[in-house]
Amino acid sequence: MHADAKALHNRLRRIEGQVRGLQRMVDEDAYCIDILTQVAAVQTALEHVAVEVLDAHVRNCVADAVAGGENGEGDAKLDELMAAVRRFAKVR
Amino acid sequence: MHADAKALHNRLRRIEGQVRGLQRMVDEDAYCIDILTQVAAVQTALEHVAVEVLDAHVRNCVADAVAGGENGEGDAKLDELMAAVRRFAKVR
Amino acid sequence: MHADAKALHNRLRRIEGQVRGLQRMVDEDAYCIDILTQVAAVQTALEHVAVEVLDAHVRNCVADAVAGGENGEGDAKLDELMAAVRRFAKVR
Amino acid sequence: MHADAKALHNRLRRIEGQVRGLQRMVDEDAYCIDILTQVAAVQTALEHVAVEVLDAHVRNCVADAVAGGENGEGDAKLDELMAAVRRFAKVR
Repeated sequence: MHADAKALHNRLRRIEGQVRGLQRMVDEDAYCIDILTQVAAVQTALEHVAVEVLDAHVRNCVADAVAGGENGEGDAKLDELMAAVRRFAKVR
Repeated sequence: MHADAKALHNRLRRIEGQVRGLQRMVDEDAYCIDILTQVAAVQTALEHVAVEVLDAHVRNCVADAVAGGENGEGDAKLDELMAAVRRFAKVR
Repeated sequence: MHADAKALHNRLRRIEGQVRGLQRMVDEDAYCIDILTQVAAVQTALEHVAVEVLDAHVRNCVADAVAGGENGEGDAKLDELMAAVRRFAKVR
Repeated sequence: MHADAKALHNRLRRIEGQVRGLQRMVDEDAYCIDILTQVAAVQTALEHVAVEVLDAHVRNCVADAVAGGENGEGDAKLDELMAAVRRFAKVR
């Protein structure tokens, strides 16, 4: 996943820039609602990172373990996957 | 998944009862915060239903298609699964 | 909030019907992804109930306590409100 | 809110560090599930920022407008607040 890793890295650099932008907004005493809007934008960007990582994981790692893995390896990967989905969806 | 279907059905009957309880709370003009707490309880119960259905789907349907499916069937199931995860996690 | 209570009650009756529809889907062994789509519809409907209740609460109860309440009453309502928002937004 | 602004700024600097940590994980080809766990940690940290900003906003800006604002000012603030809560809770 070399090309994907580069795209992911760049995406995270943009997020880093957005977080620095938030620091400036706080320093300059920006209006609360504008800060909240910008926090929401960073959260959306992070969700896209998470979905991309989850997608690559399911298509490569999990699919391989299910299709060709030794006894129980596929099941272990599916357990781990469902735990990640639960955390991601903030299931209470 | 016969046993699971029965458990799921019962879980949904309890949720139906909780929703009727909410109607009574509204009729009796209960305190807003108490209504919100009860709405949150129903949402949590529904999330558990969703996770259970997703779990069964991944372990049966998706795993079978990936392990033994014809050309492209596994990929189609994974596309469908990731779309469901995205919706479930409310990715914007 | 009499008119609103009636609208809210009707909304909850529709949600009750949707939950019964889910029971039928489970009984008839519907496709998992279709069940998940229907669960998501119920969750969206419940969110709208929660937002409506929260909205009425903020505009009546909280606003009154803040505007005219005795010492500390407004603060207590704001504490309670923020706790409800936190739960609603599933802040971890 | 000078003391709070300083605390918020520091919190955002820690988040910036976490995002840089994520870049390193991607560069070093870390295990997907570990990356997802770290993304979730950043999301939790951002939620706490959002709640803190929302809290300060409600207790200062909104409460002032409701308690002493001119005609309609309180209502306008409550509209804006509810829109922010809706976005924050990702109401569909």
